[in-house]
Amino acid sequence: MGQNFFKRDDRDIKFVLREQLGIERLLDFDVYAGFTLEDFDMILDQAQKIAANDIAPTFQDGDRQGCRFDQGKVAVPDSFHRAWDVFREGGWFALAMKPDYGGQGLPLIIAEAVSEFFMSANFAFACFAGMGPGNGSMIESYGSQALKDLFCAKMYNGTWCGSMCLTETAVGSDAHMVSTKALPDGPYYKIQGTKIFITSGEHDLTENIIHLVIARIEGAPAGAKGVSLFAVPKIWVNEDGSLGEPNDAVCIGIEHKMGLNGSATCVMNFGENGQCRGYLVGEAGMGLAYMFQMVNGARMAVGLESVAFGANIYANVLSYAKERVQGTPFGKGGERVRIVEHADVRRMLMNLKSLTEGMRALVYKTYFMEDLAKNSLDEGERKKAKGRLELFTPLVKAYCSDRIFEMGREGIQILGGYGFTKEYPVEQYARDCKIFSIWDGTNFIQSADLVGRKLNMAGGAVFRDWVAEITAFSLDNKTEKAFARELEILDEALQTVAGLALDYARYLGEGKLDLIPLTSTRFLDCAAEVAIAHLLLEQGLIALAKLDDGTCDAAKRNFYQGKVETVRYYCRNFLPQVFGRARIIRMEDTTATQIPESCL
Amino acid sequence: MGQNFFKRDDRDIKFVLREQLGIERLLDFDVYAGFTLEDFDMILDQAQKIAANDIAPTFQDGDRQGCRFDQGKVAVPDSFHRAWDVFREGGWFALAMKPDYGGQGLPLIIAEAVSEFFMSANFAFACFAGMGPGNGSMIESYGSQALKDLFCAKMYNGTWCGSMCLTETAVGSDAHMVSTKALPDGPYYKIQGTKIFITSGEHDLTENIIHLVIARIEGAPAGAKGVSLFAVPKIWVNEDGSLGEPNDAVCIGIEHKMGLNGSATCVMNFGENGQCRGYLVGEAGMGLAYMFQMVNGARMAVGLESVAFGANIYANVLSYAKERVQGTPFGKGGERVRIVEHADVRRMLMNLKSLTEGMRALVYKTYFMEDLAKNSLDEGERKKAKGRLELFTPLVKAYCSDRIFEMGREGIQILGGYGFTKEYPVEQYARDCKIFSIWDGTNFIQSADLVGRKLNMAGGAVFRDWVAEITAFSLDNKTEKAFARELEILDEALQTVAGLALDYARYLGEGKLDLIPLTSTRFLDCAAEVAIAHLLLEQGLIALAKLDDGTCDAAKRNFYQGKVETVRYYCRNFLPQVFGRARIIRMEDTTATQIPESCL
Repeated sequence: MGQNFFKRDDRDIKFVLREQLGIERLLDFDVYAGFTLEDFDMILDQAQKIAANDIAPTFQDGDRQGCRFDQGKVAVPDSFHRAWDVFREGGWFALAMKPDYGGQGLPLIIAEAVSEFFMSANFAFACFAGMGPGNGSMIESYGSQALKDLFCAKMYNGTWCGSMCLTETAVGSDAHMVSTKALPDGPYYKIQGTKIFITSGEHDLTENIIHLVIARIEGAPAGAKGVSLFAVPKIWVNEDGSLGEPNDAVCIGIEHKMGLNGSATCVMNFGENGQCRGYLVGEAGMGLAYMFQMVNGARMAVGLESVAFGANIYANVLSYAKERVQGTPFGKGGERVRIVEHADVRRMLMNLKSLTEGMRALVYKTYFMEDLAKNSLDEGERKKAKGRLELFTPLVKAYCSDRIFEMGREGIQILGGYGFTKEYPVEQYARDCKIFSIWDGTNFIQSADLVGRKLNMAGGAVFRDWVAEITAFSLDNKTEKAFARELEILDEALQTVAGLALDYARYLGEGKLDLIPLTSTRFLDCAAEVAIAHLLLEQGLIALAKLDDGTCDAAKRNFYQGKVETVRYYCRNFLPQVFGRARIIRMEDTTATQIPESCL
Repeated sequence: MGQNFFKRDDRDIKFVLREQLGIERLLDFDVYAGFTLEDFDMILDQAQKIAANDIAPTFQDGDRQGCRFDQGKVAVPDSFHRAWDVFREGGWFALAMKPDYGGQGLPLIIAEAVSEFFMSANFAFACFAGMGPGNGSMIESYGSQALKDLFCAKMYNGTWCGSMCLTETAVGSDAHMVSTKALPDGPYYKIQGTKIFITSGEHDLTENIIHLVIARIEGAPAGAKGVSLFAVPKIWVNEDGSLGEPNDAVCIGIEHKMGLNGSATCVMNFGENGQCRGYLVGEAGMGLAYMFQMVNGARMAVGLESVAFGANIYANVLSYAKERVQGTPFGKGGERVRIVEHADVRRMLMNLKSLTEGMRALVYKTYFMEDLAKNSLDEGERKKAKGRLELFTPLVKAYCSDRIFEMGREGIQILGGYGFTKEYPVEQYARDCKIFSIWDGTNFIQSADLVGRKLNMAGGAVFRDWVAEITAFSLDNKTEKAFARELEILDEALQTVAGLALDYARYLGEGKLDLIPLTSTRFLDCAAEVAIAHLLLEQGLIALAKLDDGTCDAAKRNFYQGKVETVRYYCRNFLPQVFGRARIIRMEDTTATQIPESCL
């Protein structure tokens, strides 16, 4: 077992759930009628304990021992086996899945809050744990009754695991170009092809793995409509649920990576000996459409992973900064002080704190929208929530994943020379997180999705609705002196983002197509900062009210006062970046596309 | 041997040396009278070949095999031994040192251009190679004749190596607080103490290592004035130069790090058995002052390391982008294209290209100032060059080291999923470089040096002189239509930086001390971007003139046209960041220092 670096707490999670989002509303929905707020608290508390006591000690093992490949088999770090047992015993795999196959039926946002603890503790382990229920829910959504009965229960309770097999050597971002073949073979399909970058494609945590494989049925049309989804067990499953023969689905190697070494990233050969059988899931030709359910979930998860890393980076470096004595305060001289007293260290700590809380505000709000979109009793609210979910998903994915890499830098910097060593966990988080900006659609793809599709959803109404909501929020609170300056900045930043969105419409009209991909990543960051500042200011107002009502004990006062300052810090140090980026975007510089390739 | 990733070229280096800086001037100085420009070219060409053929193949070994510690001994990666032999045979160690002890007597800027190739090829190896001559030149500068005769020649030719022993467990940035003791012992001193983070403190490349150790002579005054410098051989050196007994200077462990695993970072015990002897170097109490010669050199080297990494990251990802086919151009559809044709990839490539060339412009200019400061025949020029060197050193160190980490991110992003794997070199550069923002004075310390000391050198004349030079440059070129917009931005950015400098004077006057360390890192980036944009525009004007004179062949036209576009790109995409940062600085936000520690 490695060192236990789990130092984060749950205070801000509970604040967001209870005081900002008001999750008690969820109890009104039939599907959640069996729960109470106390149940949610108990589950969160228990998850935090397990994360701290059972999962976090495997964090370093993931990196140091890593996954080892030998002759088609992948051995996970030894300590992961015991953590898996803990998950099985506690039923932690399928929290948000419906109870039909053993899911816990919890609201999505509670399940994801639980995940935040586990992702802080050891995300490589969480990668394994998430795949079974993730794939199982795809089968539950789209598979036949027979498939559901055959697979879901065991995928929801950790008996079997899953993997999502999409990418091929020549096919990363072009999912519709896959060349893996499926040939009808009675009730099954023979699958043949090689998939790469397959997370959890092979390992020794479970007796079986149900791969979901994207392939093209022989004779299917070219492009996206010819692509179908198949369930391909590693070990064939007999009709009675018992295990049969190995299914010619073999791992031929794992990647050696910058980080996340505890998660097996596999090259998978399907049907090398012509003996790989799979089940069609749902309708032929719908593979990519189905897959997008999972991809959207994965994009949201990237945001949560970033929050989870940020929370524990912050907790670790704060604890270091409170103890490490070095240097005298700038310009003041005197005795050496703990580095938490240095202005520049404070600045970096506040970067970490405000980004972590800001990203959490965005991610949790968006998950809450997903719950409302599915379960609200009001059709208008469902529709609005769905639009907001779709609008925010690229912000969640790209903004958070780019920030967490910068936060790794900041955390390492606070630790000084020690930050570069493996004695502290931050360098591992910084390495582990680097894949977040790439997988599940690169961050550029997120920005193209935002500008090219999301801004224009429902004729632009979803975007306009969001702008109107923030405008109203600013108006409603314009007498709030404690945040007068922040609300001014928010308003100006919102107008800037709205103006840039109009510019994009103009670029399209004027045929200035290059300007969109040349600037869309910057625009996405601007939109995300406005969204986050708005949500943080909501939090700030709640905190102010609590401070005013005079009932807070010291711990609560510290939290609320810290929240007020954190909101201010974000609005003054991150939100104004919108203006600098907008100035650069508005230069409409096309040097990058105009320079001849021979001059590069 | 690992894979050879050396893909970079030398075109921009030669352009900067010959066409921008005009290094032929150096031939007028007596110390360089024995050289010709052809000599410099030959040396650069030969260095590039050795870097590509002999050093680059050891790049991956440094990371994969790494340094191994066992019972006080450190084994370097196997392939480093042969590379060391190549260096010894070619006399590549002490290029800029005077010939008295076997140095090559080259101008500093030529020696550093050579280093850029070696740092691209394998910086971990370069860390070992640089320590002997680095320490030797300290002894040559400050040691007695006897010490020089005893040590320098063998440190300059790779027979012996060196290490710089400064940091202690409780002493990172507070160098004056060292607790290592030195007790007079006849002509020697007995040394006792433990030093950490000692680069090249122990290894098996050379038969001996001459440590330079910062220690406090018993009874010396507290603080900086009590600190002295000692030469402490690993193996005692007899008066005739032969090796004697081991000197009780023992490595007790090496760090396990995020990167740079081929460079041994040692914990060193001096005098654990009371048997460690050392020589006082120079005068007692002058240790820190002497050390700063080396620290300033190391700060400059950080800039060069960043350029070296950037050049080879760019070359590798450009070559990938020209081959990898993926996706159709945004909004245009049609066939899939090589990713170099995608606007967003182009943008990232131009980020890498313009930052690499921009950082090189700054670093080489500053090295050239160092040459002029030492050797110009004109006292006024020497003085001015020295001021500029001192003003620019923190910009070189901090701006370049922060950018190279971001450039690692950008390079990985261009490679997509492959960028996260060890199949490509970028992830290793991204890990290796993370120490640059920390060692030799953290980047905050650089910014405090800039604002707290350098802006006010000579009553502010050095800074004003730089501002005046750029103002004159803008005026001189205001009719240059090809860069009209860029010159406008430069002028506005320069005024902004000059204004911020005045604000700092005001903060001091008004006692708003916290505002300085809260904003100085941002200010440093602003100043660096103005300095770089100015130097790049100088380059752009040279390139325009060459394009106009009609004598260029196709390769030259490509280079010069590429240069013009690169200058434009930097001025439109990096330089305007000054305005966004300035707006944030001018908010004068002190939330980070005002928030009570209990609220963090």
